[in-house]
Amino acid sequence: MTEKKSPENAAIRLSFYLRCLRKMKKEKSISSERLAQFMGTSGVRVRKDLSYFGQFGTRGKGYMIGELQEQISKILGLDRVWTIALVGVGKLGTALMGYPGFRKSGFHIKVGFDVKPSKIGRKIASVPVYHPYRMPTIIRAQKIRMGMITVPAEAAQESADLLIISGIRAILNFSPAVVVAPSYVKLTQVDFTTQLEIMTYFIINRTKEKTQTKLL
Amino acid sequence: MTEKKSPENAAIRLSFYLRCLRKMKKEKSISSERLAQFMGTSGVRVRKDLSYFGQFGTRGKGYMIGELQEQISKILGLDRVWTIALVGVGKLGTALMGYPGFRKSGFHIKVGFDVKPSKIGRKIASVPVYHPYRMPTIIRAQKIRMGMITVPAEAAQESADLLIISGIRAILNFSPAVVVAPSYVKLTQVDFTTQLEIMTYFIINRTKEKTQTKLL
Repeated sequence: MTEKKSPENAAIRLSFYLRCLRKMKKEKSISSERLAQFMGTSGVRVRKDLSYFGQFGTRGKGYMIGELQEQISKILGLDRVWTIALVGVGKLGTALMGYPGFRKSGFHIKVGFDVKPSKIGRKIASVPVYHPYRMPTIIRAQKIRMGMITVPAEAAQESADLLIISGIRAILNFSPAVVVAPSYVKLTQVDFTTQLEIMTYFIINRTKEKTQTKLL
Repeated sequence: MTEKKSPENAAIRLSFYLRCLRKMKKEKSISSERLAQFMGTSGVRVRKDLSYFGQFGTRGKGYMIGELQEQISKILGLDRVWTIALVGVGKLGTALMGYPGFRKSGFHIKVGFDVKPSKIGRKIASVPVYHPYRMPTIIRAQKIRMGMITVPAEAAQESADLLIISGIRAILNFSPAVVVAPSYVKLTQVDFTTQLEIMTYFIINRTKEKTQTKLL
């Protein structure tokens, strides 16, 4: 179990390394120690993560930034365009269909599904919207592998089931419902509250620090 | 730097522990090893994280779930209601104002700001919307400490500046623009593409595994 999980966790960190590398426009090379600093981790961790996927960099010279970026992109499958099917063309769904960050990173929401007659057959944020019963036909024909769920909680599981039947193998679930899927499907729950919970900790402890300073 | 960062990373993991504990409705107690399993980490890590914040559990007996939940909630400041000011009442902003998960976790978007005259003075998703020039007055009067930015990229920095002047100390930035803030403000960038990038890795590697099985 732990062995199987390790490459996936490394992949998560690779995605963060890539994000750091993209911000470095001026430098040509970087040491594992400096890359680690950006991440708040250790050089050993960085070297271990990268070595898991192959041979990168030169001992004592570090990594060539452009080259490393390309290699990580390839490992993560980001050297191509990924198409996405979205279920639930409500406020959040429409917002995501128009989210400029996706296109820039090679992700393209290509089709939307919604039960509302007023939405079916229309294009919303340039994306055609169909009734969910057409999911299997359309998703298979377009060879789409990724899905997003932005329906109300009570429709989340049904939407996931339909996506999976249609051939979707990775789902980002934005609905507040917990959804189950077979192990061959990667299901990620997007939960904004986790980020809020970390922020509250920060506010409390900053306030404490300030109070302590005042007391001294 | 590393020493200062460590309690915050522990806080991030605490938030995940809490999420796991909340799902355990049947059990009364849990060992650090089992809690670690859920997280894909080690029992040592869990014990270290918790010991950082005080004395929890009994050696050999593990942690009482209800008690641990309460204690973590208190450390993270989740034993109270947090109010939030949101800037940018567009599609994403409106979707967030109606997001049921927030209320359930003690987060309450109490006020919205937007420059569009058609939105000012109205209530959208039960939240009153004002012109951004009123931020300092309203946020101070209501003692709000957290902010969310859901404006277009070009207005993100200005929105952050106004929130900070108004007394906001933690900001969740949903706009695709990178925003800067002084160190006494906790700024979190919400980036959906990171989650997508990890999913692509999964799809590629699952497909590879399948192909290999077929070849055998």
